Amino acid sequence: MPSSDYRFLKACRGEPVDATPIWIMRQAGRYLPEYQAVRSKVSFLELCKTPELAAEVTIQPVDILGVDAAILFSDILIVVEAMGMPLHFDEGPPVLGSPITDRGGVDRLGVPDPEAAMPFVMETIRILRRELVGRVPLIGFSGAPFTLASYMIEGGSSANFLKLKRVMFEQPGVWHALMDKVTTAVIEYLKAQIAAGVQAVQLFDSWGGTLSPRDYREFSLPYSSRAIAELKGLGVPIIHFVQGNPALLPLVASAGSDVVGVDWRIEIGDARRLVGEGVAVQGNLEPVALFLPVEKIEERAAEIIKQAGPTGHIFNLGHGILPPTPVANAKALVDAVHRLSAVG
Amino acid sequence: MPSSDYRFLKACRGEPVDATPIWIMRQAGRYLPEYQAVRSKVSFLELCKTPELAAEVTIQPVDILGVDAAILFSDILIVVEAMGMPLHFDEGPPVLGSPITDRGGVDRLGVPDPEAAMPFVMETIRILRRELVGRVPLIGFSGAPFTLASYMIEGGSSANFLKLKRVMFEQPGVWHALMDKVTTAVIEYLKAQIAAGVQAVQLFDSWGGTLSPRDYREFSLPYSSRAIAELKGLGVPIIHFVQGNPALLPLVASAGSDVVGVDWRIEIGDARRLVGEGVAVQGNLEPVALFLPVEKIEERAAEIIKQAGPTGHIFNLGHGILPPTPVANAKALVDAVHRLSAVG
Repeated sequence: MPSSDYRFLKACRGEPVDATPIWIMRQAGRYLPEYQAVRSKVSFLELCKTPELAAEVTIQPVDILGVDAAILFSDILIVVEAMGMPLHFDEGPPVLGSPITDRGGVDRLGVPDPEAAMPFVMETIRILRRELVGRVPLIGFSGAPFTLASYMIEGGSSANFLKLKRVMFEQPGVWHALMDKVTTAVIEYLKAQIAAGVQAVQLFDSWGGTLSPRDYREFSLPYSSRAIAELKGLGVPIIHFVQGNPALLPLVASAGSDVVGVDWRIEIGDARRLVGEGVAVQGNLEPVALFLPVEKIEERAAEIIKQAGPTGHIFNLGHGILPPTPVANAKALVDAVHRLSAVG
Repeated sequence: MPSSDYRFLKACRGEPVDATPIWIMRQAGRYLPEYQAVRSKVSFLELCKTPELAAEVTIQPVDILGVDAAILFSDILIVVEAMGMPLHFDEGPPVLGSPITDRGGVDRLGVPDPEAAMPFVMETIRILRRELVGRVPLIGFSGAPFTLASYMIEGGSSANFLKLKRVMFEQPGVWHALMDKVTTAVIEYLKAQIAAGVQAVQLFDSWGGTLSPRDYREFSLPYSSRAIAELKGLGVPIIHFVQGNPALLPLVASAGSDVVGVDWRIEIGDARRLVGEGVAVQGNLEPVALFLPVEKIEERAAEIIKQAGPTGHIFNLGHGILPPTPVANAKALVDAVHRLSAVG
């Protein structure tokens, strides 16, 4: 089918659809036995860097769940490693070596040529476009500048982001230099993904919700806005997802994306009012709700579909699917969303 | 002075004040060398359980910073230990033994008689009331039922509250039995604190923001509402602070407290609109902003004072003060709030 006919892409553009499209953040992941079978043979980073395997796990949830879009299997820190920071995944969360503490650390970072530095990502995309022809569109992604800079300063995840915010507040020159460089890298990375074939892109700002509105406006929004502005003319919808603070939604929408991602902390009807007319929304089932009995999952899906309305809505969880989630429940959700939203 | 004349208590009631009162969450804590000197001699739990020492560190920030209220030095898990769960503070965050997984675990918990099970808390309060006469009022507190139940199921802190939410969703009978018992314990505990002399109480729902509005309404709000209703006629203002999700503010206000605590994730003027007329607000400076230069701290304080307005506002941080915070900056904030809000 012509790619403009995909339900997911129509919803991104706010056009009428035959049913609400759905995909699931982290849909290629540990909750799937088929993923675990592939992952058991290689490390997480090897999986990200082996195009045939990354493409295989990307397609698994399309086959198994029937979702309306595939999303490139990769990690948001791949581009950070390409900028020059050593990256390790031991069995726990990611750890970056030599976190940024000063201007010298920023100056040592490079802005990578994506095709040269991350050829495996572009090759994965090319394989996927061939294999997904006529099935579903392919979403590319990057961490948003704020979340990538957070990892680069904290060295990993953080409870209160003290190191990050101290750099912002005590060394604003270092912060803005870092964000400027990271933003350039994100733009180049997503342009390369689009050139390789992705049909939409999502900016994941997983940690953006730790900021107050005034700090988001000063320290993060200008960079996300610049990234979105530079990608806007390239013919693919842009999804912008800031997790963790519903009070930021009007500012997130002001960055100019086609779609605003919504986490589970707010009712999606309220989120729609906050982002305003002419912007699609994506979300927002509580991920743990997938442990409820199927009839209760369906009730919640129905409520979200009703509140979001029939157009300009892409169904998703409010955050990534969790490893112990029953696959049958994820499949039941996909089926329920299609059935409950079907037109006519 | 008659206790009704305290600036802090007037603000809780929405009455005119000569200047906006301020206290700081975790104001008795590790950022103060005077606290560290006391703490170096005993363990954290010994400090909580030794009335003379707990009273001493409670008073320190009144002397050093000039805050308008003292808050009982204790830990929110003291009441959980009294309910029958073993509590350990090794050098890191608290750990509870034998987390709740089923109905049997709930049935084994007791509802303690606070004077018998936590006599050191009541004795600390009695010492403090004598020592604080004519200076500042004393705030008592408890963890809110949801946050206490979270600790009891997770066994400690958590990134995604999967265990907690799975109990809520998969064993709702166990959840409601647990919340019912915890709520009764919280009510008895706060009644005993009030009988011993505290002049206001705060319910700390540190983790409540992890819930969606629909789940907050079903699984948490009825219990906080019941606690507040039972304490309401006892003559002391009730502060209700749910951290982590501004979209919950209208529901939090509906629980009926005199004051609603506001974290830093939303502008306080917007928070006031969400909680409605007739309710005071408490907050909401970003804790890490205390690392800014003093003139920038003052700018932020002025903006919060302006947005919140001259009555029904208690200045505070949006969360606890962080251990490495410079004491001079905390003192500068207290002075600035008094100076910038002084009625003329």
